[in-house]
Amino acid sequence: MEKIIYPKGFFTAGIHCGIKEKGKDLGVIYSTKLTNASGLFTTNKIKSASVLFTQSKIKKGKIQAVIINSGNANTCTGRKGLKDVEEITSTLAKELKVNKEHIAIASTGVIGKFLPVKRIKNGIKKISKNLNKNMDDFVHAIMTTDTTKKCVSVKIKIDGKDVVITGFAKGSGMIYPHLATLLCFIITDCAISSKLLSKTLKEAIQESFNLISIDGDTSTNDMILILANELASNKMINTQDENYRKFSKSLKFICQKLSKLIVLDGEGMTKFIEIKIKNAQNIKEAKEIGFSIANSNLVKTALFGEDPNFGRIMMALGKTKVDFNPSNVDLYLGGKKVIRNGTIIPIKRSDLKQKLKNKKNLITIDLKQGKEKISVFTTDLSYDYVKINASYST
Amino acid sequence: MEKIIYPKGFFTAGIHCGIKEKGKDLGVIYSTKLTNASGLFTTNKIKSASVLFTQSKIKKGKIQAVIINSGNANTCTGRKGLKDVEEITSTLAKELKVNKEHIAIASTGVIGKFLPVKRIKNGIKKISKNLNKNMDDFVHAIMTTDTTKKCVSVKIKIDGKDVVITGFAKGSGMIYPHLATLLCFIITDCAISSKLLSKTLKEAIQESFNLISIDGDTSTNDMILILANELASNKMINTQDENYRKFSKSLKFICQKLSKLIVLDGEGMTKFIEIKIKNAQNIKEAKEIGFSIANSNLVKTALFGEDPNFGRIMMALGKTKVDFNPSNVDLYLGGKKVIRNGTIIPIKRSDLKQKLKNKKNLITIDLKQGKEKISVFTTDLSYDYVKINASYST
Repeated sequence: MEKIIYPKGFFTAGIHCGIKEKGKDLGVIYSTKLTNASGLFTTNKIKSASVLFTQSKIKKGKIQAVIINSGNANTCTGRKGLKDVEEITSTLAKELKVNKEHIAIASTGVIGKFLPVKRIKNGIKKISKNLNKNMDDFVHAIMTTDTTKKCVSVKIKIDGKDVVITGFAKGSGMIYPHLATLLCFIITDCAISSKLLSKTLKEAIQESFNLISIDGDTSTNDMILILANELASNKMINTQDENYRKFSKSLKFICQKLSKLIVLDGEGMTKFIEIKIKNAQNIKEAKEIGFSIANSNLVKTALFGEDPNFGRIMMALGKTKVDFNPSNVDLYLGGKKVIRNGTIIPIKRSDLKQKLKNKKNLITIDLKQGKEKISVFTTDLSYDYVKINASYST
Repeated sequence: MEKIIYPKGFFTAGIHCGIKEKGKDLGVIYSTKLTNASGLFTTNKIKSASVLFTQSKIKKGKIQAVIINSGNANTCTGRKGLKDVEEITSTLAKELKVNKEHIAIASTGVIGKFLPVKRIKNGIKKISKNLNKNMDDFVHAIMTTDTTKKCVSVKIKIDGKDVVITGFAKGSGMIYPHLATLLCFIITDCAISSKLLSKTLKEAIQESFNLISIDGDTSTNDMILILANELASNKMINTQDENYRKFSKSLKFICQKLSKLIVLDGEGMTKFIEIKIKNAQNIKEAKEIGFSIANSNLVKTALFGEDPNFGRIMMALGKTKVDFNPSNVDLYLGGKKVIRNGTIIPIKRSDLKQKLKNKKNLITIDLKQGKEKISVFTTDLSYDYVKINASYST
């Protein structure tokens, strides 16, 4: 884990308030100055009350604090779920002396339970007095089945000033983002408008969180927020100039790093797999193929078993709706060509088996029908994935 | 297992020829009289050479014998794969004294290996002398990871004559049929035209094989063939009359029975799950939702763990592209309502947990937006699924 720096004026906290039986379950991000903010949210039609609430608040582009709970998704909770988040965010607003219109909320955990509002309100009183710059407290509070902390900091110069961008993410299962993903909070002291934050965030996601899948399932609670409080005192970024590009490059770096950390902590994972699709007609088709392979249980179990059963990769390629010529396809496993023009190349399976023992591995498909390429990232499917998910809620 | 009857004039055989290390691996179906035939094939773009060959032969609607091998899919084998099936089917034609234009071939097993043609040719000499009416020999020869025999017979009266329809299927993993599925051979002595066989088969599939999924993966080798040799001596069915409807009803029954037998033998399965989608706008949307739930690893692992984590079912519903109102949805688990109008109903989790212990179970979603309904069938995802598939090819 690299060193995590806090941008000026940002504080976090994390405590146990009793949503989970044990462990931290309530976190807060607070900026001393109102931030320009933007967010992206799950495309799942079943949305957490917390997602619905924050979606409506973020429209004005101004946020000063975020409250996050783990252990309960606040999803399928109907009107009561919405009333609960109103009450929780109002309580936090009062404690932090912040306008309640500037509070966001995010939740993660089991779907189909009402939030324990009283416990959370008691927790808020405690947490508001514990704001600090200790990343550990906060990050543990937003974890569910995660086993590693996922934080990245970058310090850059913009307009001669030090600008810090720091991202926190959680996520380990139910990971197949569409547009937005899991929980991710990015804080920065950069002076940049909400409008440009929104633009650069959307672009960064396309090349990071939207290229990963653990299990092909899309959460009801995915949310990514970016908060920028201007305290770095750089000249306000209002146009797509050099400074904007510098900021965007770092933001993309952070999102890519965080999304890989999520894959590396995929539930029960023993292998980190990059699936590269080369020479596709367009990015959309390349992604469809990449995810068809990434989400195939038969491919994933073979990778777990270190079994060079590459026919399953061809199966997953062929089952997509993408139009391609099977007789042109080359397939590489761990850099070794195993299919040329759709036909197997005689290779010792034992050599391939050896290659599959690597924890990080690469599958490459060359479609030879265009010029676009993309990589998606995924994990294998192990006994432990089944174990973790066979008894998560009870 | 009910009693299996052979239609008049049909014989089968099954032997070990050395494709697999042990166990039967070569089967033949033979009719003394040329049959009217039809077939459906995988929609996977990567197709077995055996699929390509049989697709071209079946166009004329006439087949007299089918040769089937397990242990090797003959997929990604390019021109050599096609040459191999030419050689194998020609050898069988000679042995059986059948026109080689009337031979079909099907293969199942590992993708990405050339067929051991010599062993198969030697096997053909042996198998041609062993034709019998012993279902066991044949069915074992077409199995891969299957653990049960999947055969169904029906005897009906058509036009005052006894007509027998018998179906054999294999399949246990890589099961998510599109249009056609797995390996399935249906033989009958009914007199019915190839054209009507084709029509009734397509319809039967829509309500049987196309409603099941084990793992969301579509095989490169799926094939379903129907052969009708006219030996029952009923008046030739040439139009969609009463006799056609009688035949079609029985065919659908056989396909439904076989497809359920496949789910019941799903790789590593401990639960047989029916997912019923009610009051949908149309069948296409109902199927999309049904399969999104059936193919969700998070739903499947919860079912394996007998964990009433029904939020995951709502997640899988919401991640589809179907347009629906989340505030109208009711969800039932094992007949018990757990979500009303999108909101949880307080229920003891222990009561639900008890219900999930049943081997056969029902998930019902009521969308309240139309009048169409459908059921799809699937299994849970267990340690054994991972075990079976982590070391299948080596």
